[in-house]
Amino acid sequence: MTVSDSNPKKIRAAILGASGYTGAELIRLLLRHPYVEIVLITADRKAGQSIETVFPHLSGENLPDLMAIADVEWAGLELDVVFCALPHATSQRIIKGILHETGHDFIDEMVIEQSEDYANAIKGSVKVIDLSADFRLRDAAIYAEWYGGEHDALSLQKEAVYGLSEYYREDIKKARLVACPGCYPTAALLALIPLLKEKVISKDGIIIDAKSGASGAGRSLKEANLFTEVSEAMHPYGIAAHRHAPEIEQELSVAFGDELLITFTPHLIPMNRGELETIYVNLSAGKTADDLRDVLATRYKDEQFVLVLKKDNVPTTRQVRGSNNAVIGVFEDRVPGRAIIIAAIDNLVKGSSGQAIQNMNLMFGYDEATSLEQMALFP
Amino acid sequence: MTVSDSNPKKIRAAILGASGYTGAELIRLLLRHPYVEIVLITADRKAGQSIETVFPHLSGENLPDLMAIADVEWAGLELDVVFCALPHATSQRIIKGILHETGHDFIDEMVIEQSEDYANAIKGSVKVIDLSADFRLRDAAIYAEWYGGEHDALSLQKEAVYGLSEYYREDIKKARLVACPGCYPTAALLALIPLLKEKVISKDGIIIDAKSGASGAGRSLKEANLFTEVSEAMHPYGIAAHRHAPEIEQELSVAFGDELLITFTPHLIPMNRGELETIYVNLSAGKTADDLRDVLATRYKDEQFVLVLKKDNVPTTRQVRGSNNAVIGVFEDRVPGRAIIIAAIDNLVKGSSGQAIQNMNLMFGYDEATSLEQMALFP
Amino acid sequence: MTVSDSNPKKIRAAILGASGYTGAELIRLLLRHPYVEIVLITADRKAGQSIETVFPHLSGENLPDLMAIADVEWAGLELDVVFCALPHATSQRIIKGILHETGHDFIDEMVIEQSEDYANAIKGSVKVIDLSADFRLRDAAIYAEWYGGEHDALSLQKEAVYGLSEYYREDIKKARLVACPGCYPTAALLALIPLLKEKVISKDGIIIDAKSGASGAGRSLKEANLFTEVSEAMHPYGIAAHRHAPEIEQELSVAFGDELLITFTPHLIPMNRGELETIYVNLSAGKTADDLRDVLATRYKDEQFVLVLKKDNVPTTRQVRGSNNAVIGVFEDRVPGRAIIIAAIDNLVKGSSGQAIQNMNLMFGYDEATSLEQMALFP
Amino acid sequence: MTVSDSNPKKIRAAILGASGYTGAELIRLLLRHPYVEIVLITADRKAGQSIETVFPHLSGENLPDLMAIADVEWAGLELDVVFCALPHATSQRIIKGILHETGHDFIDEMVIEQSEDYANAIKGSVKVIDLSADFRLRDAAIYAEWYGGEHDALSLQKEAVYGLSEYYREDIKKARLVACPGCYPTAALLALIPLLKEKVISKDGIIIDAKSGASGAGRSLKEANLFTEVSEAMHPYGIAAHRHAPEIEQELSVAFGDELLITFTPHLIPMNRGELETIYVNLSAGKTADDLRDVLATRYKDEQFVLVLKKDNVPTTRQVRGSNNAVIGVFEDRVPGRAIIIAAIDNLVKGSSGQAIQNMNLMFGYDEATSLEQMALFP
Repeated sequence: MTVSDSNPKKIRAAILGASGYTGAELIRLLLRHPYVEIVLITADRKAGQSIETVFPHLSGENLPDLMAIADVEWAGLELDVVFCALPHATSQRIIKGILHETGHDFIDEMVIEQSEDYANAIKGSVKVIDLSADFRLRDAAIYAEWYGGEHDALSLQKEAVYGLSEYYREDIKKARLVACPGCYPTAALLALIPLLKEKVISKDGIIIDAKSGASGAGRSLKEANLFTEVSEAMHPYGIAAHRHAPEIEQELSVAFGDELLITFTPHLIPMNRGELETIYVNLSAGKTADDLRDVLATRYKDEQFVLVLKKDNVPTTRQVRGSNNAVIGVFEDRVPGRAIIIAAIDNLVKGSSGQAIQNMNLMFGYDEATSLEQMALFP
Repeated sequence: MTVSDSNPKKIRAAILGASGYTGAELIRLLLRHPYVEIVLITADRKAGQSIETVFPHLSGENLPDLMAIADVEWAGLELDVVFCALPHATSQRIIKGILHETGHDFIDEMVIEQSEDYANAIKGSVKVIDLSADFRLRDAAIYAEWYGGEHDALSLQKEAVYGLSEYYREDIKKARLVACPGCYPTAALLALIPLLKEKVISKDGIIIDAKSGASGAGRSLKEANLFTEVSEAMHPYGIAAHRHAPEIEQELSVAFGDELLITFTPHLIPMNRGELETIYVNLSAGKTADDLRDVLATRYKDEQFVLVLKKDNVPTTRQVRGSNNAVIGVFEDRVPGRAIIIAAIDNLVKGSSGQAIQNMNLMFGYDEATSLEQMALFP
Repeated sequence: MTVSDSNPKKIRAAILGASGYTGAELIRLLLRHPYVEIVLITADRKAGQSIETVFPHLSGENLPDLMAIADVEWAGLELDVVFCALPHATSQRIIKGILHETGHDFIDEMVIEQSEDYANAIKGSVKVIDLSADFRLRDAAIYAEWYGGEHDALSLQKEAVYGLSEYYREDIKKARLVACPGCYPTAALLALIPLLKEKVISKDGIIIDAKSGASGAGRSLKEANLFTEVSEAMHPYGIAAHRHAPEIEQELSVAFGDELLITFTPHLIPMNRGELETIYVNLSAGKTADDLRDVLATRYKDEQFVLVLKKDNVPTTRQVRGSNNAVIGVFEDRVPGRAIIIAAIDNLVKGSSGQAIQNMNLMFGYDEATSLEQMALFP
Repeated sequence: MTVSDSNPKKIRAAILGASGYTGAELIRLLLRHPYVEIVLITADRKAGQSIETVFPHLSGENLPDLMAIADVEWAGLELDVVFCALPHATSQRIIKGILHETGHDFIDEMVIEQSEDYANAIKGSVKVIDLSADFRLRDAAIYAEWYGGEHDALSLQKEAVYGLSEYYREDIKKARLVACPGCYPTAALLALIPLLKEKVISKDGIIIDAKSGASGAGRSLKEANLFTEVSEAMHPYGIAAHRHAPEIEQELSVAFGDELLITFTPHLIPMNRGELETIYVNLSAGKTADDLRDVLATRYKDEQFVLVLKKDNVPTTRQVRGSNNAVIGVFEDRVPGRAIIIAAIDNLVKGSSGQAIQNMNLMFGYDEATSLEQMALFP
């Protein structure tokens, strides 16, 4: 069922943490990527299982069974790229090992017996694309405050490139370690960075009311994620205390050239995929909603994954289900001096695994859209 | 299956527009009301059908068939109360007739042949509870602006009491015509009126990000309301242009004692029932989120249908599904000087038919909670 | 918010296993029961928590906090009725203790230190309504085969009355221990018992294709119950191997007067509540679908919770959401000699907690419908 | 965003009835087909609108606006293939015109003024793939009985090839007119044809209990299709009277070599996509469920779109959401002599537009899987 006709040389990819939804989405998209071969998938708790068992929708493909990370025989894998879809904190420890930052202490801990093989296997050339939060924040103090402890790989934290493809493209191309943005930051930053850069909105009073489908909560077993708890209901959560807030602020502050604070409230919505942010902003003096739309349209006119809608057209999540697109609309508020911006993405694609592959394409010199062309699925 | 043991004298009720969801909800609740008998239900497009056909969940009860309004023989009905769940504009015309405002022109139009019977039947003593938007706005110019035309019953518009039970209780008790609030206004006003009255928040910068289940859109046949369009999706709509905005502003301005404008964005959520509003406010100097919570808790401590949650407890729609309760929580924002208020109701109960019955209970001297005691249904 | 006006004497009820959905539903319904006071609710894993924390929709009521069973001080509780919503196997052990079957070994295990108090507390008069599967099967060998081990309270297994209210009414009135039917058996038995009793259908070839909402799977943390796994999907499960099959067969065999086997396939449907069974039967010689409908209509004409629909009317789950009703329809098949019967219930009400309360009403001499009158909630 | 690298010559495609869900799905899949160019899309009621308006998820592509069929200027279109996603009855009239069956009467009616252009445009070489029911039934009397009237293009009805790709592959390659199977028949036939051909099951007593997501009902405005009616509910419909029954029987009779009747009950499930059939069969003497599985596995081992699961693996709709795959599992029943077969497809892909494109690939000599390779989308 593969697309390859001309049989190109393929890079060898590993997916660490492949039994979660971002892992499954990486597999789904990479299986149809003409230049990638998946040679390793890991999942500690489901080690030994086939992907058919863990994700029946990926049945019928030629994939290795899931392994525990500690059991991987790195030698011979000759990995070119590692996607790391592990929980934060774990992520930094594993990546530190993979990228040789600490000599052998990762190997000591994780892969004791195969340490030599491992050192050979990854010999400095492997590239890492991290989907966790571990390398997104540049300020070690802010990381420690929000993630409950010191960072364990500070030099890598500095080296990591923030993987918002449309803004760090050139750095991503040269990066060894890319930290993919959170799903909420992806939508918020695509909507707000150009406006703050062009100073058509104020840095004060930005309010992001965010709504996400349940896949954003991952596949972990929490009562709050049961069908019966989520369905026919709506839950705000992490009110004024969500870890994506400092991440958004970091990048918006860079864009504006000054520190800023945002108000951020996420809500859990009874649907699987999709994320929509309703953003309230104060206009700079003399500016209108139309000006904002123009700024965005100009900025994104050559970006194939960002669509700025014409006046009065309203973004919805159904436009992007399963696709790597972001859709943005701008609306005049009734209250003078204000505007409302709405941005929608699929949290598992542009908000996560799709953007990770977009970054991989950049890092390896492929067309940025390779394997990301598929249209949204509706209904 | 009825509750009546002591066989009290019952008031005679009509429900006009009984084939919509608010109509069904009125029937559901009134069927278990010990002091009410439903003697007339109308639905022009489904005239002649039994309620079992139109609403199978109401099967097995002793109810008249649906009639067209024009076919009603008013004489002999001896109505005590009319619930009007008709579209706006239609509502005002019918109610004008019922309440004799215009002598016989309603009768001319609507019930030509039975005009005398009709005049006898309703002989001035009938009370009307309107669930449409027709009598909510006191300012005729604002009505005309937002509802696309002059009001046809201006004197009634002045007479009508705004049916937010917790605030107009004494007026409602004496009213002949009560205009039940819209669903969005109900939640917003319960959350904000005390705060503006006590001046613990600013009148400027109030932002209401509202989310509603699909029953808020009614049972009318629009492509946007199909399962396939709503499910697995999220739609903002009526951005900065929803008719509930001026209604909210009217009542908040009364509370604060000065004109104010709000920002209001509703969203359609893939669930049947429930409405949640995330409200962003600016604190008055020196005030905190805790102060706001205290003001609300004090105001509502004796109100049985309004529950102010303790610190850190988060309102969700599942708490109120099928019940007449409103739940409110207050949260400190990360941005100094701001707070976030969250309010949840069931749009079809407290946001519509439940509140209508609460008002009926007030108007007829019953315990305010009669037939509204049932707990929320979860899951 | 309580309904009591005349302040009747109330029986004292305990709910063991109150943090699951059947427990919540018992609380919801009993809180509005005029003759019941809930004096004990237990949940081992959530011991010490308030019901507001565990079930926010039950907030604002006067309920004790959850306890671990082992911490209950039985003395002074003076329980009249115990609802047991515990997992099977646990259930039999606890009930054995409560009902003194084994002298003091339950007390030894569970409530060591308060054994004397406990013995006093329950002094033989307490009645137990079990919602688990432990006492449904009369044949000890079949129990052992399907539930993976010997039954631990065989004499109680014999004593227990099968709590299908419409069929064991007189026995239930006198029972000390009632075993409430499973949700699937409830719908199947109501549909099939009269037909087998009257021999209008064959005992061979009965096929029950059952569909249930996710609340049937309870509140336990399984990956298969996550929103993201259930939503937008449909899962058959327990194919030809579900424990409700022998339960259905037991009661159908009694009705027919001979052993029989059924085909039974349950499916998980993406909705919270509701259960619908599509049942395929072979007609007895000369019988028609109309005959079947007549038999059912005659049997249930005086049953207030069983509604047999007229020809061509189709049962749906929305007719019974939140109500204690069962709805049954009969249809002619295109294949000669066959008919299709469709039955719908709310699995958490008639299929579980509602029927349990119906049985309690019988056991204590109340009107059978007390606290069960509420209409279905739609939409 | 197109896939084309080597710029192959593309065939020119029209989609008639492009504003429904099957139309949208055809567009979604054809937009990524390397050898197809969409040159005409029609929708009478939405004529003049852009595809962005009608289907926002298809925004950003280079597509013509929707036209009314009567306004099409056929000359110059040089169509190679026409997908007809129109209502039945309409379909036959249009296709008759396109395929010259009636000389000019189609043109007279539909495209009066451009008749000459039209005749030139379609000059006999165009191929038609019909997604309606109009050409599926070979027996004119059965068509008339189930579709309420005489067929209007009897000779075409005879010529049409039934487009079940896996069974009529060679005929489809040579066909001018392909009648794509209904969604329910597709799943049923893939599961049952090999078993009847090999006579491992009886032709008597086949029961198909079918469940479908709401997209199967199309995008038409019916109250029964509203979100609020479908969500949190389950509806059997068309009981023993669904038009797909005779279609299934036609093909199964061919497979078995003798007439047969089936029992068929469809159910509407609250999800967008997906169809699952639970099929009950009687085994031939001496045969087991394992034999059935072997027959299916052997038949489909070289079919890339049909996956027969290993013992104990259960098909679910989530395995096929958005993909062209069918998944089949076989299970032993508890009742001796019986087995249960479960088949799942995406009703809009393998059950409709995907199979239509599979047929187009066959008709034009492309690899059968072209543009159909994408994996299922989960969650």
